[in-house]
Amino acid sequence: METTYAVFSLSQLSFFPPKPRCNKAYLSWPCKQRNSQSTSLHCQKMYVPGFGEASPEAKAAKNLHNFFTYIAVRIVAAQLESYNTEAYEELMEFMSRHSLNDGDKFCASLLRESSRHKSLALRILEVRSAYCKHDFEWDNLKNLALKTVDESNTRLMRDYVLETSPDN
Amino acid sequence: METTYAVFSLSQLSFFPPKPRCNKAYLSWPCKQRNSQSTSLHCQKMYVPGFGEASPEAKAAKNLHNFFTYIAVRIVAAQLESYNTEAYEELMEFMSRHSLNDGDKFCASLLRESSRHKSLALRILEVRSAYCKHDFEWDNLKNLALKTVDESNTRLMRDYVLETSPDN
Repeated sequence: METTYAVFSLSQLSFFPPKPRCNKAYLSWPCKQRNSQSTSLHCQKMYVPGFGEASPEAKAAKNLHNFFTYIAVRIVAAQLESYNTEAYEELMEFMSRHSLNDGDKFCASLLRESSRHKSLALRILEVRSAYCKHDFEWDNLKNLALKTVDESNTRLMRDYVLETSPDN
Repeated sequence: METTYAVFSLSQLSFFPPKPRCNKAYLSWPCKQRNSQSTSLHCQKMYVPGFGEASPEAKAAKNLHNFFTYIAVRIVAAQLESYNTEAYEELMEFMSRHSLNDGDKFCASLLRESSRHKSLALRILEVRSAYCKHDFEWDNLKNLALKTVDESNTRLMRDYVLETSPDN
């Protein structure tokens, strides 16, 4: 069965714009206080460099926004497929020519393609709004993400220990 | 100022494995009931095709997991930079040879590189767990994502209306 993957692509990794968000001497690891302003002194969080004025949450929200657009396109396509094959074909054809990586750019282009495409675009905007507000399970996302981190950490360490065990 | 972008890359778009998750005749758009089993009849959500046995939430959690690894690497690097430049250089050098797109694969390789790299890897595992449990603002993520969708929808429609207005 074919499945579809939407992955975080960390297209640019840069460690050099260290704009302090906040600092924390974490566990036993010393961490130089980078910012002596009072706003930072009360922050109990680990310092995450490289996000400039934005935050990791803002970056993740932007990524989820593109993901919701992608999901809205799939929902609309699935609906069209069953009762309006002509519109479905048009949407598929448009998708073959336009990337969904930037959801807003995709919708902006779709709005301007033709009046029929405009209706599709408005529908996609409506669906992504309804989806993220009513259908997407935010608590489930958090639980799954926390579980994934725990399970992955355990698996990575177990695999390493098994691999390097002298009994093997 | 240089900023770093982590984007959802929808690397494979496929509309052809429609495994019903759930159906909803949404607003005024007709939607054929694809699955007559009772489990689907009580579901009030829109049908999202193409996720197979997984869910959009699981897919997003997996992406966030890679994002947390990326953030943990940045946190550890920022800490090392200030008090252990040798380890910092080693981590940078390793990163130049290994992609962070798959966080677990990156950590598995780092664990096996050398005993010094192993310590770095264990530290990264620890930090990504602590980060997603204590530092990452989940409510903020949700609020920002909902706000982004609303603002983007308004902006896209406003821009289109202004562009096509006969007064222009």
